[in-house]
Amino acid sequence: MTDLVLYVGNKNYSSWSFRPWIAMAAAGVPFTDRVIPFDFAAGNPEIRKVSPTGRVPLLQHGDVKVWESLAIIEYVAELFPDAGIWPQDRVARAEARAISMEMLSGFRALRNACPMNIRRTPGSIDLADGVTEDVARIETIWKDALARSGGPFLFGSFSAADAMYAPVVNRLEIYRLTRDETILAYMARMKAHPAWQRWQAAALAEPWIVPEDEV
Amino acid sequence: MTDLVLYVGNKNYSSWSFRPWIAMAAAGVPFTDRVIPFDFAAGNPEIRKVSPTGRVPLLQHGDVKVWESLAIIEYVAELFPDAGIWPQDRVARAEARAISMEMLSGFRALRNACPMNIRRTPGSIDLADGVTEDVARIETIWKDALARSGGPFLFGSFSAADAMYAPVVNRLEIYRLTRDETILAYMARMKAHPAWQRWQAAALAEPWIVPEDEV
Repeated sequence: MTDLVLYVGNKNYSSWSFRPWIAMAAAGVPFTDRVIPFDFAAGNPEIRKVSPTGRVPLLQHGDVKVWESLAIIEYVAELFPDAGIWPQDRVARAEARAISMEMLSGFRALRNACPMNIRRTPGSIDLADGVTEDVARIETIWKDALARSGGPFLFGSFSAADAMYAPVVNRLEIYRLTRDETILAYMARMKAHPAWQRWQAAALAEPWIVPEDEV
Repeated sequence: MTDLVLYVGNKNYSSWSFRPWIAMAAAGVPFTDRVIPFDFAAGNPEIRKVSPTGRVPLLQHGDVKVWESLAIIEYVAELFPDAGIWPQDRVARAEARAISMEMLSGFRALRNACPMNIRRTPGSIDLADGVTEDVARIETIWKDALARSGGPFLFGSFSAADAMYAPVVNRLEIYRLTRDETILAYMARMKAHPAWQRWQAAALAEPWIVPEDEV
């Protein structure tokens, strides 16, 4: 099979890159990644060369380019149907997609006010309007899924839904947005996952600082 | 098979409801719909009873509830694998999902400034920042897909990708946002589709006026 190359932004900051990366890494899909730093500078000429939208993440598979984090995950799930990227049960899979799409389309307040930042020392910040409501909905989503599946991840084994919420795990930790024990225990399991650990180590080794994401 | 019931908002205004509705209707999937007017009032008690997010669209299938427009489409595509909801070709399907997810996550300027309004008489408005850029990207997406497939729809036959952009077809028409002939011809084909015509007739028959969506 042709090699899969995933173009990603800075691992410390690029939440959209983290999602397909950890989905693929946790599922054991063979791929290489290429970091294009400072992707938030939309006109970055290197990313313009590879991505039709000028943004990362972008999956290159021979001549095929797939953009949008969740479309990349769907494409890889079709290439590797036995990798367990989505839950096997049809109803669980529908719920996993529904909450993945809530992440894709929503939680703007949290995403805008609380950027992902792997290396940040945890500490509270003044919360913008809407952040508390976003966190409450996320806690409900996680608790419902964990209660139904029994854990350790949202749908039992690690799935695309955990991947889509991985950057939020970081946000809830570094801005101290939750005290719920069920939620904190899920976050601890996510952070202990070998794929998370690999991404984190790479993020910590990056030299780049993006001031607007240091809140 | 258990009946499928799709809960939708006002057909005149509810762009997110239009997407799964026209995907299912165009594919010939048997379902009934239930209109819950004024869904934008987030606390609507009727929708609270059926939807875990308090929002429409919501698909009920026996005990199973699926929310988020594109998750509904994915669920129905799995139930009816021969209905052609996604393109058959894997690469075309990946592109169809990528542009569907661009719609789900983006085009905020256009969506905020230019609400869908089936009954509105076409006429220009002053354009908010970002609308022109959103329209330019949408024109590129449509032209690339039409050029590759040969039409008449984005991926040949009507697919989920056309459904995801259906409300944008209305917006481009009623606010006169394009003069491109390829784009206008695609919009004319969309509006002539029998499923579009059925939705439109129902929208025109609705008595409700939502002032904030009349710009």
